[in-house]
Amino acid sequence: MTSPKLKVAIAGLGRMGARHAAHFYGLTPRAELIAASTPDHREIAWARATLPGVRTYSNYDEMLYQETQNGLQAVIVASVTAVHAEQAIKAIELGLHVLCEKPLSTSIVVSESVVAAYRKSLETHPAQKVMCGFSRRFDASYRDAFDKIQSGLIGKPTVFSSQTCDKMDATGSFVEYAKFSGGIFVDCSIHDIDLALWFFGEESRVKSVVAVGITALWPELRKYNDRDNAFGIIEFYGGKIAQLFCSRMMATGQEDCTEITGTDGKISVNTQLISNFVNIHEATGIRRELVSDYYGRFREAFIAEANEFTASCLDNNATPLKLEGAVHAVRIALALQDSLISGRKIEFDESGHRITGGT
Amino acid sequence: MTSPKLKVAIAGLGRMGARHAAHFYGLTPRAELIAASTPDHREIAWARATLPGVRTYSNYDEMLYQETQNGLQAVIVASVTAVHAEQAIKAIELGLHVLCEKPLSTSIVVSESVVAAYRKSLETHPAQKVMCGFSRRFDASYRDAFDKIQSGLIGKPTVFSSQTCDKMDATGSFVEYAKFSGGIFVDCSIHDIDLALWFFGEESRVKSVVAVGITALWPELRKYNDRDNAFGIIEFYGGKIAQLFCSRMMATGQEDCTEITGTDGKISVNTQLISNFVNIHEATGIRRELVSDYYGRFREAFIAEANEFTASCLDNNATPLKLEGAVHAVRIALALQDSLISGRKIEFDESGHRITGGT
Amino acid sequence: MTSPKLKVAIAGLGRMGARHAAHFYGLTPRAELIAASTPDHREIAWARATLPGVRTYSNYDEMLYQETQNGLQAVIVASVTAVHAEQAIKAIELGLHVLCEKPLSTSIVVSESVVAAYRKSLETHPAQKVMCGFSRRFDASYRDAFDKIQSGLIGKPTVFSSQTCDKMDATGSFVEYAKFSGGIFVDCSIHDIDLALWFFGEESRVKSVVAVGITALWPELRKYNDRDNAFGIIEFYGGKIAQLFCSRMMATGQEDCTEITGTDGKISVNTQLISNFVNIHEATGIRRELVSDYYGRFREAFIAEANEFTASCLDNNATPLKLEGAVHAVRIALALQDSLISGRKIEFDESGHRITGGT
Amino acid sequence: MTSPKLKVAIAGLGRMGARHAAHFYGLTPRAELIAASTPDHREIAWARATLPGVRTYSNYDEMLYQETQNGLQAVIVASVTAVHAEQAIKAIELGLHVLCEKPLSTSIVVSESVVAAYRKSLETHPAQKVMCGFSRRFDASYRDAFDKIQSGLIGKPTVFSSQTCDKMDATGSFVEYAKFSGGIFVDCSIHDIDLALWFFGEESRVKSVVAVGITALWPELRKYNDRDNAFGIIEFYGGKIAQLFCSRMMATGQEDCTEITGTDGKISVNTQLISNFVNIHEATGIRRELVSDYYGRFREAFIAEANEFTASCLDNNATPLKLEGAVHAVRIALALQDSLISGRKIEFDESGHRITGGT
Repeated sequence: MTSPKLKVAIAGLGRMGARHAAHFYGLTPRAELIAASTPDHREIAWARATLPGVRTYSNYDEMLYQETQNGLQAVIVASVTAVHAEQAIKAIELGLHVLCEKPLSTSIVVSESVVAAYRKSLETHPAQKVMCGFSRRFDASYRDAFDKIQSGLIGKPTVFSSQTCDKMDATGSFVEYAKFSGGIFVDCSIHDIDLALWFFGEESRVKSVVAVGITALWPELRKYNDRDNAFGIIEFYGGKIAQLFCSRMMATGQEDCTEITGTDGKISVNTQLISNFVNIHEATGIRRELVSDYYGRFREAFIAEANEFTASCLDNNATPLKLEGAVHAVRIALALQDSLISGRKIEFDESGHRITGGT
Repeated sequence: MTSPKLKVAIAGLGRMGARHAAHFYGLTPRAELIAASTPDHREIAWARATLPGVRTYSNYDEMLYQETQNGLQAVIVASVTAVHAEQAIKAIELGLHVLCEKPLSTSIVVSESVVAAYRKSLETHPAQKVMCGFSRRFDASYRDAFDKIQSGLIGKPTVFSSQTCDKMDATGSFVEYAKFSGGIFVDCSIHDIDLALWFFGEESRVKSVVAVGITALWPELRKYNDRDNAFGIIEFYGGKIAQLFCSRMMATGQEDCTEITGTDGKISVNTQLISNFVNIHEATGIRRELVSDYYGRFREAFIAEANEFTASCLDNNATPLKLEGAVHAVRIALALQDSLISGRKIEFDESGHRITGGT
Repeated sequence: MTSPKLKVAIAGLGRMGARHAAHFYGLTPRAELIAASTPDHREIAWARATLPGVRTYSNYDEMLYQETQNGLQAVIVASVTAVHAEQAIKAIELGLHVLCEKPLSTSIVVSESVVAAYRKSLETHPAQKVMCGFSRRFDASYRDAFDKIQSGLIGKPTVFSSQTCDKMDATGSFVEYAKFSGGIFVDCSIHDIDLALWFFGEESRVKSVVAVGITALWPELRKYNDRDNAFGIIEFYGGKIAQLFCSRMMATGQEDCTEITGTDGKISVNTQLISNFVNIHEATGIRRELVSDYYGRFREAFIAEANEFTASCLDNNATPLKLEGAVHAVRIALALQDSLISGRKIEFDESGHRITGGT
Repeated sequence: MTSPKLKVAIAGLGRMGARHAAHFYGLTPRAELIAASTPDHREIAWARATLPGVRTYSNYDEMLYQETQNGLQAVIVASVTAVHAEQAIKAIELGLHVLCEKPLSTSIVVSESVVAAYRKSLETHPAQKVMCGFSRRFDASYRDAFDKIQSGLIGKPTVFSSQTCDKMDATGSFVEYAKFSGGIFVDCSIHDIDLALWFFGEESRVKSVVAVGITALWPELRKYNDRDNAFGIIEFYGGKIAQLFCSRMMATGQEDCTEITGTDGKISVNTQLISNFVNIHEATGIRRELVSDYYGRFREAFIAEANEFTASCLDNNATPLKLEGAVHAVRIALALQDSLISGRKIEFDESGHRITGGT
């Protein structure tokens, strides 16, 4: 007898949605992708060709309505950021498990409303799982780093440096996207912020943030209060500091890396960037190529995320990430974004309230 | 409507068999693992616990008999080397597709009998696929190297260096295994030999081989005519040379790497050994860990192999590797093994016949 | 006939002074070290044993007085920072060439007085050379990076990241030194600041600086207004930003590295830290050792500095660095140190005057 | 009072001779270069311009005759290989210290005659030093590797792999040079052979050698019995093996590296090839440049050699290398060269006599 599989639907089949769909369709043995929704007809055509057996919908609500009658158990929210929260809440209120792409929202209030909906629903669905996906938490190298830190290998971790730097996109397609993205700290550095919270402890409280940035190649980002390169510093209560670098201007490829320094040692992740194990020796030097986007580096992590979320739902185990952390990360990212634009250093008291620099 | 999946059975659930089973069970969307056979009761118990829905058999013939009635289409032969050929031939003669673990056999004659059986069966089953798996052919880095060489990036490839070096196993478990393995060149270097044939061209003809070796740690290997460390050189007609290193004595982990030098450049694969992207900075230095076995390095390649073999069968496309190459590689490996033990350089004429050094 | 050599005296034979003495004594063919002064009798004994033929003095003024009569042409000031400026000015006023260790002073006013003395002296000694040594400017790799940037390889350089991180010194000897050092940004990051000015252009004007830091291991640094780890950001007018990291807490060794990102590419220097070309494969991983201090990494640069300074003096060529840059770097370092302690972001107008954040 | 310096003369001011001259002239504090001889008038002009104070001669014998009257103590033989032995012997017979470039000769008999001359001279000049320079013995990384092996870090060293591969020289200038070089194993691999003897122990006795090679780009090498790429294997009595690779065809630059595997670990030297610490991130990948010749990699080693040879002479200490080792290395290189051309494996008895494969 075959053990039961988790019945999953996905909302959104854009770039990231299509990847999630493929992971749940063919690379998550304990899950069965039964439905997908997207308002985009080309994406529906893609799903029909690529995901035989999966029912497609142009309307999310319709999908929820129909598929709950087919035993739907979990929803993957991978649509545009603007509808993440709304779609997640609808599924939560139906008692469905939810895996929501990051961020929950570019608004703290809206992000918190997802957490509130989940807390309320838990009262009647105590086994319900809701998770916001931060892919690096599922990456084998970042996990190895975390485990080594937990084991005490570097003493007390106190100094954190991390960067999320995108390959230069000459078309500047991200400029229009900046209208909705929440800005470069929310779009890119949120991963680094989440890592800082992971390595320093989820309970870490921010003391101050400050950021500066430039528009080296795309001055039109300024109309959306965004920048193409920025540095930020986060100071935590208790003697911990973090440094961030985000950029849209890497010539070679995606350059994401992290270093965590403790009182007894340091761990670095990804600092020797490679795409594979090939080196080319030619007249101009020894060359290695690079992955062109974060999926090239983190594909395995996304697949692990799909499998572990599925296992949490089926086995009623805790999800690898707590939902509250996603709100915490957005709050810090938005403060950095605020500092980036206002030029002010922003300070917080020990309860998390801004005490200076507010806008 | 779901498109039909390839119905697959697996023979052997030992270390490698269990991995193949997991790949076909959960990571090969177009395949359905329906049955598995092994004479080992513990392995059957494992399959029942881990692969729900898969029918298990303690007898290979019985599995073939029953499952052909259930629509079985393909067999994965992952049992002990000694029965590879026999099991493969039985499946071939039933018109089934076959993916056989390397080597087909440690005997050239037996290896050739598999090829002969396949050629005969093709007359009546022209869409039948039979492939011997050389995992590195499916590895993204080796493929990238191959594509770059094909594109002319290094000019004409003429000098090849490669090594397959196992992590030291203090228990010496491989000593008893040496009785059946065919020796270190057949067990380890066969991968490197296959790569040389791939990069230099499958039609390459050997002019001479020579090998020397030692037993640095396990002198008891000598009773099975084996060594724990060896070097070999292969000379091809047409001005191409290959150098091999195989070892059972790597302190840190699996060390497999390859360099191909051409008249305009060089490509190296795996020469900067890593297990993941973590570096540890501690008082004694900067340290990185290593994978402990070839599966740690080539897992993705095995999964690609499962998916591509499946696609070849379903879509009636050519398999990525030709079966004849597997015989060619065994023939070279056995000649090296012969030279290793006899101390003689072995020469071949342009038709492939030994002209000196025979034993 | 032998060509004349530059007659050189050195002030200070402490750690760095002894190195400069050895460089000028045996590794600078066009220079002749004729005298050395130090108030420390052990250092005088060391000089007598190690530098035969060099006259030693316990008093700097006495050395100047006597040796000008012996044809002294140049003075290397490598004494404690507190007397750098005074000793340099005395030599300058005698019309001698001067190579002064960094920093000229931890005070801007005093630093400027050295520049003023030099400008005045130049009126009567137009061939006089005065240089403040920033060793990285003489390092082959940093020079290669600079040349590549100048050639346009990375487009317009706009984003700079650099760190000077010392190996952890369990004795905490640097704590007492912090009383005089000017703080971690003046002592360590001054090199990175100088590099930023070099790569971005000496004429770059600072718009703002901000810094945060902690005392992870040595809280007693706080009594000298210092920290053991700090991050800083420098914003320049014209759309350029720099990020700094300085630390006293590296477990493995000296970790100094730099990245410069431009609109077309990036150059990194030293990011793959090594001490030599050895890798050790052992059961716990592959390990490489690290240099334990900056001299281990930059010895060749110091030797190049000695030879190039000598050539400038003998051939009346421009020195590789302008003296004014040293004041510029100190000014930025002190502003970062101020921000580190005050917690304020400090802003400058386009003429270089502080407009906020003053103390 | 200045301590006395070693009075040195140099024979030969070609590429390597000019470098030695510069090292002894300006970078060896305890030596004084007093004279140089070369039959080439352009080289004499170079010396007069570059080495003021050094007396020049167009005739070696004349230099010896004149300079012994000026207190000459040591001769550096850096002329063409064909006269190494003759010039060395003349200096030895005068009781002078001699540093001779490798090889002593491409003939074993002639090489042995140098050793014999030295042994004889020692009877009357017991403090006389004669050394054949193998630069890698003075390289910091190779020395670190040696020290670590001596300390037992890798257990018993038993497996050695090393390569000396020259950057491709499109002019093929080395083809004519092959007439005198002794062949690629004598010209290039002699360094690797010397390293094998160093790491395995000078007393190691060869059991067999075998080599194969090709002419991938320069078939005209065949008329001088040479090849442009070759592999060789050396088997030593006592269970030790060495693998060599030599090439004239590296597209990027000089690629010299070495690995020594022992029963408990492995040490690699130079396997991550770099020229400096710069990495270039550009659209095609991350690139590092390479040194174009062995001097680019080993300059510091040559300078150490000059200083240590000088110290041995002045302080009457043992030289870092024994002269006999140079004969041993030539003997092995010539046997490999013989195998390369004859196609035969060559075996030796335990007393070092060839027992098979002779020509």
